[in-house]
Amino acid sequence: MKSPKSLIRPLVHDLHAYVPGEQPKIKGLIKLNTNENPYPPSPRVLAAVKVAVDGRLRLYPNPAADKLRAKLAKLHHCSPDNIIVGNGSDELLALAVRTFVEPSEGGVLRRPNLGFRRAKPSETVQYFTPSYSLYPVLADTHGAAKNAVALKPDFSLPSVAELKRGKHWNFNAALTFVTTPNAPSGRGYATADLEALCKAQRGVTVLDEAYVNFARENALKLALEYPHVLVARTFSKAYSLCFQRVGYFVGHPELIDALHKMRDSYNVNGLGQIAAEATLDDLSHYRANFRAIVATRKQLSRDLTRLGFRVLPSETNFILAQPPLFPAQEWLQKLRERKVLVRWFSAREVKSYLRITIGTPAEAAVLVKAAKEILR
Amino acid sequence: MKSPKSLIRPLVHDLHAYVPGEQPKIKGLIKLNTNENPYPPSPRVLAAVKVAVDGRLRLYPNPAADKLRAKLAKLHHCSPDNIIVGNGSDELLALAVRTFVEPSEGGVLRRPNLGFRRAKPSETVQYFTPSYSLYPVLADTHGAAKNAVALKPDFSLPSVAELKRGKHWNFNAALTFVTTPNAPSGRGYATADLEALCKAQRGVTVLDEAYVNFARENALKLALEYPHVLVARTFSKAYSLCFQRVGYFVGHPELIDALHKMRDSYNVNGLGQIAAEATLDDLSHYRANFRAIVATRKQLSRDLTRLGFRVLPSETNFILAQPPLFPAQEWLQKLRERKVLVRWFSAREVKSYLRITIGTPAEAAVLVKAAKEILR
Repeated sequence: MKSPKSLIRPLVHDLHAYVPGEQPKIKGLIKLNTNENPYPPSPRVLAAVKVAVDGRLRLYPNPAADKLRAKLAKLHHCSPDNIIVGNGSDELLALAVRTFVEPSEGGVLRRPNLGFRRAKPSETVQYFTPSYSLYPVLADTHGAAKNAVALKPDFSLPSVAELKRGKHWNFNAALTFVTTPNAPSGRGYATADLEALCKAQRGVTVLDEAYVNFARENALKLALEYPHVLVARTFSKAYSLCFQRVGYFVGHPELIDALHKMRDSYNVNGLGQIAAEATLDDLSHYRANFRAIVATRKQLSRDLTRLGFRVLPSETNFILAQPPLFPAQEWLQKLRERKVLVRWFSAREVKSYLRITIGTPAEAAVLVKAAKEILR
Repeated sequence: MKSPKSLIRPLVHDLHAYVPGEQPKIKGLIKLNTNENPYPPSPRVLAAVKVAVDGRLRLYPNPAADKLRAKLAKLHHCSPDNIIVGNGSDELLALAVRTFVEPSEGGVLRRPNLGFRRAKPSETVQYFTPSYSLYPVLADTHGAAKNAVALKPDFSLPSVAELKRGKHWNFNAALTFVTTPNAPSGRGYATADLEALCKAQRGVTVLDEAYVNFARENALKLALEYPHVLVARTFSKAYSLCFQRVGYFVGHPELIDALHKMRDSYNVNGLGQIAAEATLDDLSHYRANFRAIVATRKQLSRDLTRLGFRVLPSETNFILAQPPLFPAQEWLQKLRERKVLVRWFSAREVKSYLRITIGTPAEAAVLVKAAKEILR
């Protein structure tokens, strides 16, 4: 009998699974660690989901989320063939790796003791650091090579000329992920700069706009102009539907069709489809939410700056801030003791920062009060 | 600028996506084509889901479905570490391929014009034909080799001795799928026979028990006895939750842990988790459903046999039946004209059959009436 370990692909053995933010169930805890929206879905969305909880649960959902894609197509002035819906945008990011990137032969790249060869562009997943920490996990899971290139020290996007000079960037990488606005820094990128980057890329380029509803600009038009550009969106953050798992890609019909071929047949649950459809019928409700969150973000940034935090400008529903006096990791603990949960990442570029989700004004006030106590 | 096609992996170009059964929205249509349960979820399950449709939708669901796994562990007398929950069991079947099977190098096996080499066992997904038509799609999607071996003409399981004599079966295949009871034939397999097969296999063996609640026996204990055996279950069919996408695997903690590493971080939507948890609190309700469906199956089998159909014995919530007088494909059409939708597969071994889902007694009566009209 073989050992269980020997039944598992070598690639899997030393995988580091993506670590999602904590979801603790502590009474009274203020949860500002996973960039969830502080406001519930709109009453119309809740009503639409509630009313659908009936005998239909016994039936398979629409396999391609046709109704939702039709509504999204209308919103974005494109065709349903430009859209694929996923079980959260995370599923689609993983699908993109599997659809556009070759696994490196026999995983050689991942096992330098078996000899090293340079990764081919066709095997390469590329992204900036810091950005969404899932991208390297997805590359590893697929057995693809990773090309991680640093953003500028202020987390702004290097220009194409700078990337060329830097020599590490690969303009032929099969797949490039750009988190825009950036996470975890919160920095927004101008569409013109993204367009220049896209124009220089020869592989598929995913603009991951998970936080774009809190930003000044969005780059959706690039997905409809350039056949190699995909824009990723999610209902999780802006539309308060993390629980339901609905995200989507917009792009060229041939790329979208390839992704459809690679996905599970019924990848999006039925109540998630219904919630997302109802959301698109009630966008004015959510636009008011976005404005409220941006206003709280401004106020919180001012308040924390006054307390000595260095707060980076944000175009998302969170801020990245360097706290004063103690290391960030200590702040994480001290805030937690006061029932305020924020996020801290150990990566070099961001380990002196806290990432703080924008909650309600009341939650922001509790955070500021806790910070004052800690500094007292 | 590259063409969109050139951005897509060659492997994807000629993929044949799995074709799910039709989900038509025709008024009054009797839908006996996708093996859905004719009965709605229990009132307690519907109530539990409805009451959960509130502000919590803004939050991420539990990433590992901890509560549900704890309940399943109790049900199956094992540990939560023996269980992984998926976005339907389909997601887990796909994950199994990616976790236990190496993609063949450069996809050579799939492109014979580039030269042929024999697939290694480590690259091989194996299954019987006919069985769940998703397995070859999953192998193709991963770039793995397929080893499809015929069941006996009556769709029963070949013995280990017969498989050895037949020479096509690979006892070293990295991953073997067995649909038990079998789909699309409906035939049940004795646990003793499955155990003999498992004992002879050296790779991971998935016993796909999607329909087991309608059978005499189940083989769950094999997943807890043999470290290379996984049992797949789903809430879709038996528990009327297709819409919600919840399935699970039971098996050795090391295999389960490997699958966890490969899955998306939040793969199971929150309301699906809640629906499945509530289901496990109301099993007696569902056991009554199973008895009703088995009773309808017996009655329908008798009625169709009387009309000249050759009905195979079934241990599932569907029957496979050879219709009289006209080819099965013609029957599909004639029944559809009478607003009864059944399923027909073009594969050689089953193309003379119809696969008919067991509906309510009233639906079965409409089917029998339509069949009588067609034969008149």
